Amino acid sequence: MLKLSALFTDLYELTMAQGYFKYEMDTRCVFDMFFRRQPFGGGFSLFAGLEDLLDNLGEFRFSPDDLEYLESLGYFEQAFLDYLESFRFQGDVYAIPEGTPVFPMEPLVRIHGNLIETQLIEGMLLNVLNFQTLIATKTARIFLASNKGKVLEFGLRRAQGPDGAMSATRAAYIGGAAATSNTLAGKMYGIPVAGTMAHSWVMAFDSEEEAFSRYAELYPDRAILLIDTFNTLQSGIKNAIKIGQKLKALGKSFGVRLDSGDIQYLSNEVRAELDRAGLTDARIAVSNELDEEIIYHLVTSGCPIDIWGVGTHLVTGGGDPAFTGVYKLCAREKNGHLVPTMKVSDNPEKSTNPGVKQVYRFHSKEGHPLADLITFEDSPPPAEGPITFHHPYMDYRRFNLCPEGPVVPLLEKRMEGGRLVSPHPSLSSIRNRALAQLDQLDPTFTRILNPHVYKVSISEEMKQMKVAMINQMLLKS
Amino acid sequence: MLKLSALFTDLYELTMAQGYFKYEMDTRCVFDMFFRRQPFGGGFSLFAGLEDLLDNLGEFRFSPDDLEYLESLGYFEQAFLDYLESFRFQGDVYAIPEGTPVFPMEPLVRIHGNLIETQLIEGMLLNVLNFQTLIATKTARIFLASNKGKVLEFGLRRAQGPDGAMSATRAAYIGGAAATSNTLAGKMYGIPVAGTMAHSWVMAFDSEEEAFSRYAELYPDRAILLIDTFNTLQSGIKNAIKIGQKLKALGKSFGVRLDSGDIQYLSNEVRAELDRAGLTDARIAVSNELDEEIIYHLVTSGCPIDIWGVGTHLVTGGGDPAFTGVYKLCAREKNGHLVPTMKVSDNPEKSTNPGVKQVYRFHSKEGHPLADLITFEDSPPPAEGPITFHHPYMDYRRFNLCPEGPVVPLLEKRMEGGRLVSPHPSLSSIRNRALAQLDQLDPTFTRILNPHVYKVSISEEMKQMKVAMINQMLLKS
Repeated sequence: MLKLSALFTDLYELTMAQGYFKYEMDTRCVFDMFFRRQPFGGGFSLFAGLEDLLDNLGEFRFSPDDLEYLESLGYFEQAFLDYLESFRFQGDVYAIPEGTPVFPMEPLVRIHGNLIETQLIEGMLLNVLNFQTLIATKTARIFLASNKGKVLEFGLRRAQGPDGAMSATRAAYIGGAAATSNTLAGKMYGIPVAGTMAHSWVMAFDSEEEAFSRYAELYPDRAILLIDTFNTLQSGIKNAIKIGQKLKALGKSFGVRLDSGDIQYLSNEVRAELDRAGLTDARIAVSNELDEEIIYHLVTSGCPIDIWGVGTHLVTGGGDPAFTGVYKLCAREKNGHLVPTMKVSDNPEKSTNPGVKQVYRFHSKEGHPLADLITFEDSPPPAEGPITFHHPYMDYRRFNLCPEGPVVPLLEKRMEGGRLVSPHPSLSSIRNRALAQLDQLDPTFTRILNPHVYKVSISEEMKQMKVAMINQMLLKS
Repeated sequence: MLKLSALFTDLYELTMAQGYFKYEMDTRCVFDMFFRRQPFGGGFSLFAGLEDLLDNLGEFRFSPDDLEYLESLGYFEQAFLDYLESFRFQGDVYAIPEGTPVFPMEPLVRIHGNLIETQLIEGMLLNVLNFQTLIATKTARIFLASNKGKVLEFGLRRAQGPDGAMSATRAAYIGGAAATSNTLAGKMYGIPVAGTMAHSWVMAFDSEEEAFSRYAELYPDRAILLIDTFNTLQSGIKNAIKIGQKLKALGKSFGVRLDSGDIQYLSNEVRAELDRAGLTDARIAVSNELDEEIIYHLVTSGCPIDIWGVGTHLVTGGGDPAFTGVYKLCAREKNGHLVPTMKVSDNPEKSTNPGVKQVYRFHSKEGHPLADLITFEDSPPPAEGPITFHHPYMDYRRFNLCPEGPVVPLLEKRMEGGRLVSPHPSLSSIRNRALAQLDQLDPTFTRILNPHVYKVSISEEMKQMKVAMINQMLLKS
């Protein structure tokens, strides 16, 4: 990822910070990062980007020329610039592990620190977490639509800038992509790399057969032949079968790729031709503007497709290109104590939940997530007995649940005083976690269209505090 | 921008390159970068990203650990890795200047070089040009919808990763944004920075009036007060007016920002209140999930809005998040000569145009662009007499035009043998070019919805070559 200075922040954070500095308001506070709606009309998101966030927090400082630049703007005072010169992020970070399915209204990250530091990091935090969570989620949807098939991420040329391609590749791997075409991401993140051939390869030779033959000669163990350059059924598959039979004689398997035309029709025809030629283990790869809905339809209509090459929609999120995570104050120091705060909005769903929070995930005996409960961090963990789950903002919606399986706190301390308290998990362990947790989710929550809504609730205590705070504000107004 | 190694390429370019290397096929060739449809249903795109492309081409090389990584994959031979070790991009680049309105089917960039180098750069070239062109175009639409108003780019937290924010800020400035909230981009690109205040500022004080008063004390020359934290009309505007009158007494102007609610209604009410208080020069800024269609409707219904803060939709492209530029071979060395090539597709619009090309823009006497003509680079520039313009792929569509105003070649040589032949224009001169050229375009082409289609045609010569090549291929098949 692009190495960021602390200048990667919205200007207003700096102008407000100068005010907090000057008026001596840099008190302790706590912020929650959460989101309000699932992207893509889906039933879950897959949290990603934490490692890049933490690494950037550790390095979040102003260089001498950053300060010179700020000075040149003409409205920062010397005392504040001196303060920024020695500025380091020294807060604590609690976060849900990357690769965890997450749901609206629950805090994914909680930041404790002083007002200035917690505000200066807002833009960077949201930028990194929003994008990687968006892409991990999109990829998980594609992966599930493919019936957990082999999804290759091919988005480099259509991604939103170089880092759009790099961050997206990392997040796509977490979300279930098997490999990427992005060689630099392969090196930097240790993600498997893959690729087939372009039409330009086929056209660079005097004939399609020669192009295939030369390729198989060079890469006998990884020959996926692109068969739609001239005519898929009249020419491409016939030439591919000739080469495939030679590879078979050498004990090698091979594959073909379709990149245009009607994929449902062509994949069936091509499968039949391959089978008739005795090449039953030859794989069929497809590409061409795929997304989860197209893949879902191809899979449910029984198309014999083994490999999915997905680019544009996977790395940009397609028609829903921004994850709408927000970052809101939930507690603030007053007279030496942290006091819960909340924002009250005319839209109840835009009011926030007060206080320093933990999220507990309740599971069935078999280990399937049932519902999440947001409680105060300093409340005892939910134990036996019927526990009341209150809807986060609708007054009369609630239910009771007796814990029958594991009740797992989701937020873990990852940084204290600006330093990591535990090493980053490896990317492959994050991916394994994600895939295992997606498996545990009831399929009604992972359905592509019109999924069941997974319930996130607030505890009895939090509900009472919220009601009391709202009443108090109504009295004042 | 993220500094890229040559590994920022799709793996298949490297596997194919090894084939071209081994089979001694690294001959001269020419590629065109062009696009097939306008994004956002619009009538123009604004070309951007060239400077970053050229800078990266100049640095496009494999580091020792890149090569080590490739070796570890197990299918690159030592001779090829040795070749990559000394690999430099040594081709020539012709390009349309950044900030020029561009249209489907015409080459925006033309690359001359050997097959391997022209292929290895494909992914990086498309990644950089596609994204910046997308965002410059989106911003230009927003800018025009605002009636060339003051558009502030506020997208950092919703952009697709850190570079998504940085590249987007650069492109947005080219497309007409007046300033950005992204302080790092301000420093790196010299773009004006701007910002107001967040709800958190207002809530950090004991009262809204105190929050406004303290802000105005600190920033008397740049006070834009956010008035929707509690209640825009009951509280926000009333407190803002108190502060505004104090500022007025000091000879300062100020402004207010609306970030929620019905902007049409509220902006009119707020304007009326400000005017009643004698604050007729106070500005009104608005934000909240704006895009060009919302802005167009607000402007055409006469809302008194002075400043537009636009984030998510501007920096991601909203529902159309990828510019679909492609990169296609148009000439290839045979027996020591460059010979035109073309791809013939069953979809006529996917067939390419053969040969090494120049694009001429024909203008009216008053300097308005009328139509573009794609000719061969080595043909004489179009002069007098009726010139026939052929539709790029529909057989019977053509028209004649007698040049009456300037006929301007668009592609300029920018790199020779891998080195820049001219310095980069400054970002502000690119922006000025863009805004001047948008002004020159007939408004029917820049209409937000259902614009007129600007005609891009091929010359008589090119048409004849294309027909001859297609006939020859039909004979063969």
